[in-house]
Amino acid sequence: MFYHDDELQFEVTVEDPNPRFAKLLQQAIGGAEGEMRVALQYMFQAFAVPQEKQEIRQFLMETAVEELGHIEMLATAVSKNLQDASDEARREAGEDAIIDEMMRNGQPRQALSAGLHAMPVDANGNPFTGNYVVASGNLAADLYANVMAESTGRLLATRLYEFTDDPGMEEMLEYLIARDTMHQNQWHAALEALGEHRPVPNSFPQEKENQEYNYAFMSTYKDERDDPDQPWTQGEAPDGKGEFSYTPRQPGGGQPDLDEMIDEMYNEVN
Amino acid sequence: MFYHDDELQFEVTVEDPNPRFAKLLQQAIGGAEGEMRVALQYMFQAFAVPQEKQEIRQFLMETAVEELGHIEMLATAVSKNLQDASDEARREAGEDAIIDEMMRNGQPRQALSAGLHAMPVDANGNPFTGNYVVASGNLAADLYANVMAESTGRLLATRLYEFTDDPGMEEMLEYLIARDTMHQNQWHAALEALGEHRPVPNSFPQEKENQEYNYAFMSTYKDERDDPDQPWTQGEAPDGKGEFSYTPRQPGGGQPDLDEMIDEMYNEVN
Amino acid sequence: MFYHDDELQFEVTVEDPNPRFAKLLQQAIGGAEGEMRVALQYMFQAFAVPQEKQEIRQFLMETAVEELGHIEMLATAVSKNLQDASDEARREAGEDAIIDEMMRNGQPRQALSAGLHAMPVDANGNPFTGNYVVASGNLAADLYANVMAESTGRLLATRLYEFTDDPGMEEMLEYLIARDTMHQNQWHAALEALGEHRPVPNSFPQEKENQEYNYAFMSTYKDERDDPDQPWTQGEAPDGKGEFSYTPRQPGGGQPDLDEMIDEMYNEVN
Amino acid sequence: MFYHDDELQFEVTVEDPNPRFAKLLQQAIGGAEGEMRVALQYMFQAFAVPQEKQEIRQFLMETAVEELGHIEMLATAVSKNLQDASDEARREAGEDAIIDEMMRNGQPRQALSAGLHAMPVDANGNPFTGNYVVASGNLAADLYANVMAESTGRLLATRLYEFTDDPGMEEMLEYLIARDTMHQNQWHAALEALGEHRPVPNSFPQEKENQEYNYAFMSTYKDERDDPDQPWTQGEAPDGKGEFSYTPRQPGGGQPDLDEMIDEMYNEVN
Amino acid sequence: MFYHDDELQFEVTVEDPNPRFAKLLQQAIGGAEGEMRVALQYMFQAFAVPQEKQEIRQFLMETAVEELGHIEMLATAVSKNLQDASDEARREAGEDAIIDEMMRNGQPRQALSAGLHAMPVDANGNPFTGNYVVASGNLAADLYANVMAESTGRLLATRLYEFTDDPGMEEMLEYLIARDTMHQNQWHAALEALGEHRPVPNSFPQEKENQEYNYAFMSTYKDERDDPDQPWTQGEAPDGKGEFSYTPRQPGGGQPDLDEMIDEMYNEVN
Amino acid sequence: MFYHDDELQFEVTVEDPNPRFAKLLQQAIGGAEGEMRVALQYMFQAFAVPQEKQEIRQFLMETAVEELGHIEMLATAVSKNLQDASDEARREAGEDAIIDEMMRNGQPRQALSAGLHAMPVDANGNPFTGNYVVASGNLAADLYANVMAESTGRLLATRLYEFTDDPGMEEMLEYLIARDTMHQNQWHAALEALGEHRPVPNSFPQEKENQEYNYAFMSTYKDERDDPDQPWTQGEAPDGKGEFSYTPRQPGGGQPDLDEMIDEMYNEVN
Repeated sequence: MFYHDDELQFEVTVEDPNPRFAKLLQQAIGGAEGEMRVALQYMFQAFAVPQEKQEIRQFLMETAVEELGHIEMLATAVSKNLQDASDEARREAGEDAIIDEMMRNGQPRQALSAGLHAMPVDANGNPFTGNYVVASGNLAADLYANVMAESTGRLLATRLYEFTDDPGMEEMLEYLIARDTMHQNQWHAALEALGEHRPVPNSFPQEKENQEYNYAFMSTYKDERDDPDQPWTQGEAPDGKGEFSYTPRQPGGGQPDLDEMIDEMYNEVN
Repeated sequence: MFYHDDELQFEVTVEDPNPRFAKLLQQAIGGAEGEMRVALQYMFQAFAVPQEKQEIRQFLMETAVEELGHIEMLATAVSKNLQDASDEARREAGEDAIIDEMMRNGQPRQALSAGLHAMPVDANGNPFTGNYVVASGNLAADLYANVMAESTGRLLATRLYEFTDDPGMEEMLEYLIARDTMHQNQWHAALEALGEHRPVPNSFPQEKENQEYNYAFMSTYKDERDDPDQPWTQGEAPDGKGEFSYTPRQPGGGQPDLDEMIDEMYNEVN
Repeated sequence: MFYHDDELQFEVTVEDPNPRFAKLLQQAIGGAEGEMRVALQYMFQAFAVPQEKQEIRQFLMETAVEELGHIEMLATAVSKNLQDASDEARREAGEDAIIDEMMRNGQPRQALSAGLHAMPVDANGNPFTGNYVVASGNLAADLYANVMAESTGRLLATRLYEFTDDPGMEEMLEYLIARDTMHQNQWHAALEALGEHRPVPNSFPQEKENQEYNYAFMSTYKDERDDPDQPWTQGEAPDGKGEFSYTPRQPGGGQPDLDEMIDEMYNEVN
Repeated sequence: MFYHDDELQFEVTVEDPNPRFAKLLQQAIGGAEGEMRVALQYMFQAFAVPQEKQEIRQFLMETAVEELGHIEMLATAVSKNLQDASDEARREAGEDAIIDEMMRNGQPRQALSAGLHAMPVDANGNPFTGNYVVASGNLAADLYANVMAESTGRLLATRLYEFTDDPGMEEMLEYLIARDTMHQNQWHAALEALGEHRPVPNSFPQEKENQEYNYAFMSTYKDERDDPDQPWTQGEAPDGKGEFSYTPRQPGGGQPDLDEMIDEMYNEVN
Repeated sequence: MFYHDDELQFEVTVEDPNPRFAKLLQQAIGGAEGEMRVALQYMFQAFAVPQEKQEIRQFLMETAVEELGHIEMLATAVSKNLQDASDEARREAGEDAIIDEMMRNGQPRQALSAGLHAMPVDANGNPFTGNYVVASGNLAADLYANVMAESTGRLLATRLYEFTDDPGMEEMLEYLIARDTMHQNQWHAALEALGEHRPVPNSFPQEKENQEYNYAFMSTYKDERDDPDQPWTQGEAPDGKGEFSYTPRQPGGGQPDLDEMIDEMYNEVN
Repeated sequence: MFYHDDELQFEVTVEDPNPRFAKLLQQAIGGAEGEMRVALQYMFQAFAVPQEKQEIRQFLMETAVEELGHIEMLATAVSKNLQDASDEARREAGEDAIIDEMMRNGQPRQALSAGLHAMPVDANGNPFTGNYVVASGNLAADLYANVMAESTGRLLATRLYEFTDDPGMEEMLEYLIARDTMHQNQWHAALEALGEHRPVPNSFPQEKENQEYNYAFMSTYKDERDDPDQPWTQGEAPDGKGEFSYTPRQPGGGQPDLDEMIDEMYNEVN
């Protein structure tokens, strides 16, 4: 079960409200690299953990719940970038300026649909989608998905950092970047703790797979090309179960030989 | 520039057409774990590589192009699972049986929209979406995305393997599983070759991030709980740049202190 | 900030696992009437509340957080409907039966993509989308959105109730239906407490709107029809600010009179 | 069956074409709060009404059909904001200015995909989606959905009103705001006429729902907090069937106790 | 402006309700080949027609409005395939049978979300999307889009025809197929009446385009292949403005020569 | 099977990088009228061709593969419009200018998610979707879809041509416009070669369709209007199988007569 309290995980202040930056921050809320994705991804991964691995469930869930708090921080940051001091103060300062800036460089739906607040969308206004969530039921696959999510997430945060020089926003991002450092590390640590887990899934009997092509780099270059002598064309494969080779693959599957479809499909091709 | 020839990369045969399995195979074409995703993902990653890293561009592109051939194989497999021998033969055998099976357990749009052929959709009929494609501009982040894509892709293929006992389909999947083994390994090999690359992005000056919380596992458990002594709460972090710690985090950000929004938004909350 | 503990809000037991019901339950997780929608809707509404209305923020947030716990319950219910006792027990019982039932009447991606667990999708497999979330910045509009969400949510739960006779599932649904009763009532109570709030938004100066047509029911019936004497064509309007009338509206706006577009658009219509 | 004639419902004029405002108007066409949504929502609701409630079907359908006319008005307004007088006149006036403004602050696809005309998309360019349409088969739930749609719709129109000072656009919006006032009122009137209808659906035997928690506000605050004495924690509930109470809920559902999944899913968590 | 009356355009009767067929009919309502698409496509095309081409606007709009009536017919057909005679009659007949069939082979959301009525979704339950609508501002392009829409629409209707033997459904489809015949023909007639219109758009000065490659079929076959002597490799092109040729194209664009991106993007590829 | 080499099909140069134009070019990559659509559309159409029509399969596939090369060219153009000479050169020139222009008028996700490179999205940032792909199994319907795709594609390219005066971009577009000319022509040539193919599908026995309404233009004008004497209301229909007529259609289908739905749906309308 879930709980909350009234405080943010980390302070969120904005000196100079900036609607353009509010729009960029939306990517960190509802985008492919954002906090809604990781919060829900870790949560659905946790939901699938069997009881005897309770420590894994807690590990995933505690991080999921931290990410919910990051959404809260970022939503606060969006609102603060879209407003100024008090209503009265803004009126005196000529609030049209911020509205105008909003309309030019902000996200129009933040005014039209949300009254100048955060939305579950990305920086282009695309709605968050459940498609972003990876929860495969296989822990190793999930952990790689998490490493990827935190890598692109930290990359996003560092890029956002380049687009602001508001001290409050910088401090908030320095905090979020630090948390992404931790989270990248913790998923790597868990993968190491899993031990022998490659190739994923490692419970599939590897002798069943085609033994001729499971460690061969196949060139699809139009003309035959020599082995480029790369780390992926020779030497031992990282899973320790095979030796890389290089093959200028010639197709071998024959032509696709479909029959005509039954008349009831009205597929005439004549 | 791209080219093709008339042959499949690997033979595709179906002894007993099975519309239900055709539906499942769609996941490997247009699903989140499917071949359209990896083909386009590696292709867009390749498009972003600067000229001086030409060998990386080729590495990504050659694999992208191989994946296009996998879509071709799977599309052939879908059609073959939805048809029988010749039209005449089917008519004699009472083709209503396969149509009926199609309607009960297949994907209705494969008959209605595609005349019993493959579509760029997943096993639920959801259309392929560009959202699946990760091409961040940062090679390390992209390679982790590729490891993840191949991990969930191989997992999908092994699960599909459990749902068929058609020898032709088994052989095709054994081949595809083998290729996924290779591809997982090649992305890992490239990550190793990149050398010191964590945390991603490693070009962000790490001293700028918040130094108090970048290696601390924060518990969000409702009540304070002791350090669970896990690989992610103590010891050296995998990036070799910090020491894990454990902290029953108390929120410290204060309450979010939004002002009322300007009147023009008609946000009355009274 | 958010927290959790290890227990469910209410017990979830399944006597007879039923993959078909697991599929239906997905509608209550990731569907338009589901718990992800209300959890995120109330959360984003709370994020937009100014500090001086702190009790409203807590009201919205406490309910949002309860709904997170309902996702947890339903995800547990989905997993339990897709599995049986222990792995050994299932094997003895012939687990193929449940797999077969899964493939025939379940959601294929629950096996292929999630290893027989819950996903952030609806009963048709459509991914959850941020489009479902309504957080307008205007409290009255939001509360009506909440009344609607809980009305369709309780309707969904009662329909689900008709599709199961598993005692554990019935008990869980009786609990969720009760909570929906409470939530419908609490949003109505808040609307009443808001006082004079119609029409939404009530801060727009109503004298500015067109005074001829703001309480007139306009018939669009092809032929002129007499006033049907309905509660919406006569008597005082519910907002207490006008008197209903009935008008067989004749169009009055003239023909749309667009000019030809500039050549640069290549819009030739000739 | 449907019909039309050549005139608009209300006059649409634009003195100063403004591509930025054309972009905003798109929200009122294809957005979550727009006219396509209400037109199709009321239409699909009408389609589901049984014959013996013919007056309800007409009520819903007549309003649906009026909304189709609003799409027509708004589409005209979009085109007029994207063009000027005659092609010749524009050329003299230097049409590059409007194209430039279009490209800077307008919606690029209105030029690229629609030749400077309206599209079935929202202000961010997101396509209209059937997800916006609520037609539940239950009239009370549908009417609440309609109240919500007209509340957010009128809110959108009042916000749009703040972003223009073109007299023609103001007049059009004053008309649309007036119609939204009427429509809000008519759905409320219909709900009142329905009589005793709460909680929705009121045909579910309420004694079946869990009687302990159907009128209790449950706090999910991290620490136990006193009853805040709000209209939703004490007093009679608005449905007149229960008394509100307050409970600092402790979870009672026990830990989720999933077994490991069958081997065929390759869910290894080890 | 739009109008309606109480009658369907053509009678809709169902002798043997069939939930599976109800599901298939959804493709003709909310699918890519369905009536919502053509109704809205022709409507948005009409919205863009300048006043001096009023007869074109009417042509498009009259057909758009007819298609609205087809949605109404199909929605009625869906409801009738999901219900039986009177409620009492169904109860006696054991309505569980139809519910069970619904759950097995129908669309689950038709029960859960719509109370056994039509929805704006396709046969897979995917929501209708504005992406289906083509209204380019160029009449010739639009007319080709309409030919295509009616071609795939008629194809869908003929396939649906194969999946029913209910006399009422057959008669309804015979009517809809006839209308599609008319609509295909009318768009072709309009294209012919447009006169010289190829290539679309014909107002672009064709001498500006690259004159070397505008009538050459380029082979992308891996190995050089002889001219296959097809109608698209030799002879006069259908637009009458060029002569087809065949060229085993060799790439000529040089290697893509991107520089490294600026540091601020954190794109390290090293 | 597919192959590639290192060269572009046609040279791509950019003299003055322009982030706004980069955004517009995205429409030609991932938009409804873009190259991803045609590449995948022709590819899936080719996948469905039976073996005995091998020349049709090659025809479709060779063009599909050419379009892949256009994606490559456009992606290169996007990157070049988002960067300048070398990193050093940009720094000296004050790279903030381009970043600022990017943030104002570019697509924010091109910086945030893709490190200033191309993405599989359109000019509004909407992801490419499989919904754009038409592959019906019926060759004539597919060829009309292809004519339409190339018509809107060429229209898009000519509009893009108006938004740039960079010589390199003009040359690239002149090339792409020329290819669209060829592709429009080749699909028309194939339709002509198909011979007698209307109405699509021509294999449905036309005598089965309703013979009263298959060549009648039905007016849906509110009031009865005289035959407008248009090419679609009189004369021989383009398919040569009927004579156009005009009918001020009166509805004839009677009122929709739905019964009340079973109680289990909780559809009370009372």
